[in-house]
Amino acid sequence: MKAGVSLGLAIERVAHDIDAQFDHILALPGDPRRQLYEAMRHAAMAGGKRLRPLLVKATCDLFNIDGRAASRVGVAIECIHVYSLVHDDLPCMDNDDVRRGKPTVHRAFDEATAVLAGDALHTMAFEVLGNEETHQDPFVRVELMLELARAAGASGMAGGQMMDIEAERASFDLATVTRLQQLKTGALFSFCLEAGAIMARVPPEGRTGLRGYARDIGLAFQIADDLLDVEGDAALAGKTLGKDAGAGKETFVSLLGVERAREQAKLLVQQAKDHLHVYGSEADLLRSIADYVVERDR
Amino acid sequence: MKAGVSLGLAIERVAHDIDAQFDHILALPGDPRRQLYEAMRHAAMAGGKRLRPLLVKATCDLFNIDGRAASRVGVAIECIHVYSLVHDDLPCMDNDDVRRGKPTVHRAFDEATAVLAGDALHTMAFEVLGNEETHQDPFVRVELMLELARAAGASGMAGGQMMDIEAERASFDLATVTRLQQLKTGALFSFCLEAGAIMARVPPEGRTGLRGYARDIGLAFQIADDLLDVEGDAALAGKTLGKDAGAGKETFVSLLGVERAREQAKLLVQQAKDHLHVYGSEADLLRSIADYVVERDR
Repeated sequence: MKAGVSLGLAIERVAHDIDAQFDHILALPGDPRRQLYEAMRHAAMAGGKRLRPLLVKATCDLFNIDGRAASRVGVAIECIHVYSLVHDDLPCMDNDDVRRGKPTVHRAFDEATAVLAGDALHTMAFEVLGNEETHQDPFVRVELMLELARAAGASGMAGGQMMDIEAERASFDLATVTRLQQLKTGALFSFCLEAGAIMARVPPEGRTGLRGYARDIGLAFQIADDLLDVEGDAALAGKTLGKDAGAGKETFVSLLGVERAREQAKLLVQQAKDHLHVYGSEADLLRSIADYVVERDR
Repeated sequence: MKAGVSLGLAIERVAHDIDAQFDHILALPGDPRRQLYEAMRHAAMAGGKRLRPLLVKATCDLFNIDGRAASRVGVAIECIHVYSLVHDDLPCMDNDDVRRGKPTVHRAFDEATAVLAGDALHTMAFEVLGNEETHQDPFVRVELMLELARAAGASGMAGGQMMDIEAERASFDLATVTRLQQLKTGALFSFCLEAGAIMARVPPEGRTGLRGYARDIGLAFQIADDLLDVEGDAALAGKTLGKDAGAGKETFVSLLGVERAREQAKLLVQQAKDHLHVYGSEADLLRSIADYVVERDR
C-alpha cells in the first residue's frame, strides 16, 4: 500500500473511532447535568483531523500494540487537547467565535458552561486512562497518567499557554518562541509518541528517537500554523486567522520571514524522519504524518 | 488527649504541612511562566482550614498509613478543591472579588491567568498522585488517580457545578438539591475517606461505613454553609454571603427553613458518627471532624 493512501485511510479510521468513543463516554444523562454533556459533545465531536490520536495509533503500530489500547489513549489525549481549545477560545483568552466552522462552546452555550465543559473534559482524560479497559497492567496505566499530567500541566501545555499570553506583552526571541511552542503544543505531541513506547514497555533510554521525531514535527506543525495564520484561507481553516500579528506576538514567521520559516519546516520534517531510521517500514505511517503536519489545512 | 485539643492540633499540623508542600511544588520558575506559578500560589496558599487533607489524615490514622502518603494525597485533593474555587470565582460563574479575605485570582491577576492557574492546579493533582513518592505500589497510585478523576469530573464535582448553574433557572426539590450537593461537594469528601481505604488496601465492600460517614458529613457541611449564607458574618467568613438567596437558588435552608435545617445537620453529624461504630478510639479524630464541619466559621 502506498504511504499516501494508507495515511488517508488511517486518518479516516482514527477519526471515526474517536468519534464513536466520544459518543459512548459522553452519552447524555437524564438529569440537570445534561447541558454539561451537550457542551462536551459540541467541543469533542466537532470533527477535526485527530492528529494526536493518529500519532498514538502510528506509534502503537510500530510496536504491535493492541488497537483498543491505542484508541483509548487517543481519546484521553483528545480530551486534553479539546479542553485546552475550549478554554483558549474564551473571551478572556483568544475570544474566538468560531472553531472548525462551528460556534465555539461559549458562543453555542455560555461562558460558565464552557469553563465547566473544559474542566470536565480535562478530568475525563484521567478517568479514561485509569480504567483497566485501557491497559491491564497498573504500572503502564499509572505511567500513562503521570506522563500525560506532566505534558498537560504547568511544566507543559498550561505553562506554554502562560508564555503565549506573556508573548503579547514581551518581545520574545527565537529561542523563547521555540520553548513556548515546545511546551504549548510539543509536550502533548511528545506524549503521543511516549505513550506507545510506555505501552510497549520500551525503557526511557530507548525512546530518544521517538522523542526527537515528536519534537521536530511539533515545531514543524507550529511553523505551518504560523504560516497559515498569515497566508491561509479562513474558510478552509475553519477559524479566525491573522490573530498573532494582530496581537503583536512574535512567531516563527515574524522572526524568520515566510521563506526561511517554510525552509525550516521542511528541514524539521526531514530531521523527524531521520530519527526513525532504526525502524523499518512499520514506521511508514509516522513518516507520512511528518509530511502531513506541514501540508494540512491548505 | 481530649478530642477538642487533638482536633485543634491536627488542623494546625495539617495546614502547616500542606502549605509547606505547596511552597515546594509551586517553586517560582525563572522564565515567562512565572505569573502562572504566582497565581497558583496565590490560590493554593491562601490559608483555609484544609478540611479535605485533614479528612485524609484522619482516615489514614485509622489504618496506620504512613504520614507522607496521607500528606501527598491531601495536597492532590487540595489542588482539585482550589482549582474549582478559582474557576467558580470567575466573572462568568459566581463573579466573586474576595476569597478568604484576599482578592480572588482573576482580581489579583487577570481572568486569563485565573483560567490557566485553575487548569494547571487541576492537572497538578494527578502529577502529585502519579509520582512514586506518593505510594510505592502502582496499583494503589492508579486507583487513587482513577477515583479522584471520578470524584472531580462530570459524574462528580463538575457535574454538581453544572447542576448549581441550572439551579438558578429551575426550581429544584429537596431530592435534587441533595443530589446536587452530593456531587458538588460530597464526591470529593467521599474521595478523602476512600483514599485512606485504598492505601490501606481495604476492599470496596469494607468501605461502606466510611462512605456513609463521608456522605453524611458532606451534607451536614453543606447545610452549615447554607445557614452561614443567610446568618453568617461576611468578615468572619472571608467571602461574600447571601449569594444563593440573591440568585434565587433553592438551598437546604430555603426548602427546610432555618430551624429544620439546623436539626437536620445535627442528625447527620450523629448519623456520621454512628457509621464509625466498628472503629475504636482511632476514629476519634473523624468524630471530632464531624462536629467541626457544622461549627466552622461562626
